[in-house]
Amino acid sequence: MTEAPKIIRIGMVIYPEFTLLDLVGPHAMLGVPPETQIDLLWHRIEPVIAGGGLPMTPTATFDDYGTPDVLFVPGGPAPAILGALGDDALIDYVASAGAKAGHVTSVCTGAMILGAAGLLKGKRATTHWMFMDQLSLFGAEPVESRVVEDGNILTGGGVTAGIDFGLTLLARLLGDDVARRTQLLLEYNPAPPFDAGSPDKAGPAATKLLRRFAAEGLGACREAAIRIGQERLGIE
Amino acid sequence: MTEAPKIIRIGMVIYPEFTLLDLVGPHAMLGVPPETQIDLLWHRIEPVIAGGGLPMTPTATFDDYGTPDVLFVPGGPAPAILGALGDDALIDYVASAGAKAGHVTSVCTGAMILGAAGLLKGKRATTHWMFMDQLSLFGAEPVESRVVEDGNILTGGGVTAGIDFGLTLLARLLGDDVARRTQLLLEYNPAPPFDAGSPDKAGPAATKLLRRFAAEGLGACREAAIRIGQERLGIE
Repeated sequence: MTEAPKIIRIGMVIYPEFTLLDLVGPHAMLGVPPETQIDLLWHRIEPVIAGGGLPMTPTATFDDYGTPDVLFVPGGPAPAILGALGDDALIDYVASAGAKAGHVTSVCTGAMILGAAGLLKGKRATTHWMFMDQLSLFGAEPVESRVVEDGNILTGGGVTAGIDFGLTLLARLLGDDVARRTQLLLEYNPAPPFDAGSPDKAGPAATKLLRRFAAEGLGACREAAIRIGQERLGIE
Repeated sequence: MTEAPKIIRIGMVIYPEFTLLDLVGPHAMLGVPPETQIDLLWHRIEPVIAGGGLPMTPTATFDDYGTPDVLFVPGGPAPAILGALGDDALIDYVASAGAKAGHVTSVCTGAMILGAAGLLKGKRATTHWMFMDQLSLFGAEPVESRVVEDGNILTGGGVTAGIDFGLTLLARLLGDDVARRTQLLLEYNPAPPFDAGSPDKAGPAATKLLRRFAAEGLGACREAAIRIGQERLGIE
């Protein structure tokens, strides 16, 4: 008699206006092996409208799902993050599930949500380049890197970093061979037509333009992060 | 009086079990500038279950949408492609919309659907590495490259190639500066943790394993492609 293989339960928290590619990159990688089961988590089973207007349907609720083996939180633009930071029940779920999950993970500004839940205190973590300096408001040590690992915390950079993150996480869960085969199946052999994927490479003019465009949202997120850091996490 | 900017209508065909990342990569890139409007097209407005079990809701029907400025078709694994190739009304829509669209595009095995619709006859095109040799059954010239352009036909390789494809298409539609800024916003600065994204790099053992796993589906797609090539496209 052989034992049935243990299923790795991956719970992905979603919320209005989250960035779909933050989630779909890791979902595509992590969903290939038969040993994983991925759920999308929200307060209720009703469509949540992601950025770009695409509705996504949760498969489980925060109340019913319990603790995942892997907790994952995607990011979103400033208004989406503001909304999530103001959703006490969502932050409470992330805090309690994250305290018990085997792996606590995020892509892009999903790290802001892990931070607000108190999961990044004293931890090295990364996020979208525009939000990098805000992680310290939650007691984290921001690191400019595509994927950052600190104990059981694995965070990825902005949006497309979710694919590099997904492969890294898959290797941690099921080994390098599975990750390499999945990379081949999804033909992840990147060849960007331009070299403008970071502030350094894109240059100050483009960087300043995007920062200016997002300034109001970034400021509002900073205020919320300071407040949560002080009131919820006891950070001076 | 200034003229309102022309909206670029991008019609993305979906179908059961299509690979979500094939679509969400380009969607994320193409959806950033305000000049684009993206619709998901299907027979009816009802959820279509993508690969990985995620339901996607179409925003327009083949009958009502008419001709897009950009026609886009994502790929899927063999059973999904078999289903699409057997869906005469879908192939008819792709054929008629593709004959009039400004840009005719695909990612991954979406090229098989463009091919079945007769849009790749005599054209250079690419697809997922496993399906590369099947494109010639539709009269196309297969090219092993991340993104291939031939006139108004733009095709991308397997799954994750959709991000390189999306940036390339964005540059064609709105210029290199918009594409570069979008690359920065989505932080597309890839750093794969492994170097296994093509058969050459992953090596013969992994390649053979995936081919063997997909053999039945690949064979069924080949039979369908031969039949469609002969009966619909008049290819000997």
